[in-house]
Amino acid sequence: MGGDQAPQMVVAGLRQAQKLHPNISFLLYGQEKLLSKLIPSDDPLRAITQIRHTDEVVTSETTVSTALRSLKKSSMRLAIQAVADGEAQGVVSAGNTGAYMALSKLTLRAIEGIDRPAIAALLPTVRGLCVVLDLGANVEATTENLVQFAFMGSLFARYVLGIEKPSVGLLNVGVEELKGHDKLKMAQLVLKNNPLIENFYGFIEGDDIAFGKTDVVVTDGFTGNIALKAIEGTAKLLSNFLKQEIQKSFLSKVGALLAKSAFSTVKHRLDPHRYNGAPFLGLKGIAVKSHGGTSAYGFSSAINVAVHLIENKVNERLAKDISLLSQHLVQEMENLSLAIEKPTPIKG
Amino acid sequence: MGGDQAPQMVVAGLRQAQKLHPNISFLLYGQEKLLSKLIPSDDPLRAITQIRHTDEVVTSETTVSTALRSLKKSSMRLAIQAVADGEAQGVVSAGNTGAYMALSKLTLRAIEGIDRPAIAALLPTVRGLCVVLDLGANVEATTENLVQFAFMGSLFARYVLGIEKPSVGLLNVGVEELKGHDKLKMAQLVLKNNPLIENFYGFIEGDDIAFGKTDVVVTDGFTGNIALKAIEGTAKLLSNFLKQEIQKSFLSKVGALLAKSAFSTVKHRLDPHRYNGAPFLGLKGIAVKSHGGTSAYGFSSAINVAVHLIENKVNERLAKDISLLSQHLVQEMENLSLAIEKPTPIKG
Repeated sequence: MGGDQAPQMVVAGLRQAQKLHPNISFLLYGQEKLLSKLIPSDDPLRAITQIRHTDEVVTSETTVSTALRSLKKSSMRLAIQAVADGEAQGVVSAGNTGAYMALSKLTLRAIEGIDRPAIAALLPTVRGLCVVLDLGANVEATTENLVQFAFMGSLFARYVLGIEKPSVGLLNVGVEELKGHDKLKMAQLVLKNNPLIENFYGFIEGDDIAFGKTDVVVTDGFTGNIALKAIEGTAKLLSNFLKQEIQKSFLSKVGALLAKSAFSTVKHRLDPHRYNGAPFLGLKGIAVKSHGGTSAYGFSSAINVAVHLIENKVNERLAKDISLLSQHLVQEMENLSLAIEKPTPIKG
Repeated sequence: MGGDQAPQMVVAGLRQAQKLHPNISFLLYGQEKLLSKLIPSDDPLRAITQIRHTDEVVTSETTVSTALRSLKKSSMRLAIQAVADGEAQGVVSAGNTGAYMALSKLTLRAIEGIDRPAIAALLPTVRGLCVVLDLGANVEATTENLVQFAFMGSLFARYVLGIEKPSVGLLNVGVEELKGHDKLKMAQLVLKNNPLIENFYGFIEGDDIAFGKTDVVVTDGFTGNIALKAIEGTAKLLSNFLKQEIQKSFLSKVGALLAKSAFSTVKHRLDPHRYNGAPFLGLKGIAVKSHGGTSAYGFSSAINVAVHLIENKVNERLAKDISLLSQHLVQEMENLSLAIEKPTPIKG
């Protein structure tokens, strides 16, 4: 639940998801009266939806500490708890990201071997789709975090996007001798030799995201959040500029009408609602974040992501392989420290 | 000099700059034979251009240490030296950014009170133009660096863009309780109370860059570089998508032809060549970096930036005000540390 136009948007999203996934069922947390009105008893959606009443709500203004300490029965918390209790297989919310992540970490807990869960997102590129992570769960990232993000992103691309050997890139600045922080250089060295990530590409730059240079883009949450929003802002800017200019002349309006199919295909290819649904990777339960300002279609896309994660047992696979990764990571970091104490292999 | 299509592109850029600035003259460093052929003795450009021969060249593959230690007569170095010697009032190069910044720092030196020079760039937004800095000179930035970037960006916006009281934003992640690094929080507190930056907006997010929320966007070089390239990549992605789709149908092609004026206005508004020219701010001399892959028009835009910086005496104003800023900064940082040792005013 949650989001800017909740609960109407959410309920409409459930309706769309019901059509796509005939075996799906929902536990819906919130104001029972309101929700019962939106889903009357003769509604086919009602047959697969249990409405569970609560008065407490996490808003976009709620601080994380209030969400964690005071609101013991918020709809967000109860929905996550349902996953922890095994009542639900996954949770989707369009509410306050910080509170949602904090409650998810507290309630679902991180998979053994994962130091920090990450928020991942799908982005359209020239070549198709890419997964970018982290998008804000961790403002800073250690070498170990980055390596784990690469690993989780790779599994996600394989099992949710269906890319057999996803290529993985580490986001960095282009200027040669300023090639990023030491943590990033170290992560590159570790990833180069890691048998669990078969297709490590190396460093990529900001423009390589849109060019689709790699299937997975790994970065810290600060950079990832800003890059993603910069991309969203630019897409909006461009379409606004074009709309403005087209409105200025009759000929342009006619032209735009004739080229309508091209415009709508591009709009569809870039539609943020299509790619809505950012999974929290690395938790012992499936939790997916929907954009707060999304549409019903967008909310159903977020539900799709959760369904894919569940059906492909991504968490089980992650938990299984992570111990191998951890062993390898410890060993590699030791080797690298030894190597760095001798002549440094890091070009600076 | 330098750049992907140098020296032809550079010489053509000089020709365009000559038209715009009747009093301009050039010192051109590089292969004399080649340059003399491109600018024959009866060419009007030759009358205002001194060609100075050198065989040494910094390429995109040259490491910073080679550029600094081995290449004592590279065209890049000699051009910067001409500014240091007072022979030229500014230098423009489309060559290797890292080497250019390192040589500029070594040769021109930072203005007293500026800890680290920054690379700034202009970007088109919904509202007009904004200045973003730093774009890669410093992968990490302290609170002091960020405050100085805000100050330099503000002066640049005032004197080069002609905005009387430029608004200044600090780039941050949107998620409330994860509001960035401590350095960023501290910079916000310092900037809030700084009389030298009259119009401090506060934190802004990645999409606010394109929305033009502030005239100046302040960030560390790592984030700035990645955000800028992500924006460039997205703009290219969108125009490619649109071109592809328009080619797919006859009707769309006709439509695009009719809407041609709208398309070309948007193209012009977003043309990277128009905004080419990233000044190195905070040095005791004017140095402007042109994009390596730019056009003659783009190179002349970079020359424009240098001319604006020179004509508006931006460096002199910067040097004059920076001592005031430094005093204020030291005082504020002390006050804030005191305040933070008591109950912390930073919400986290």
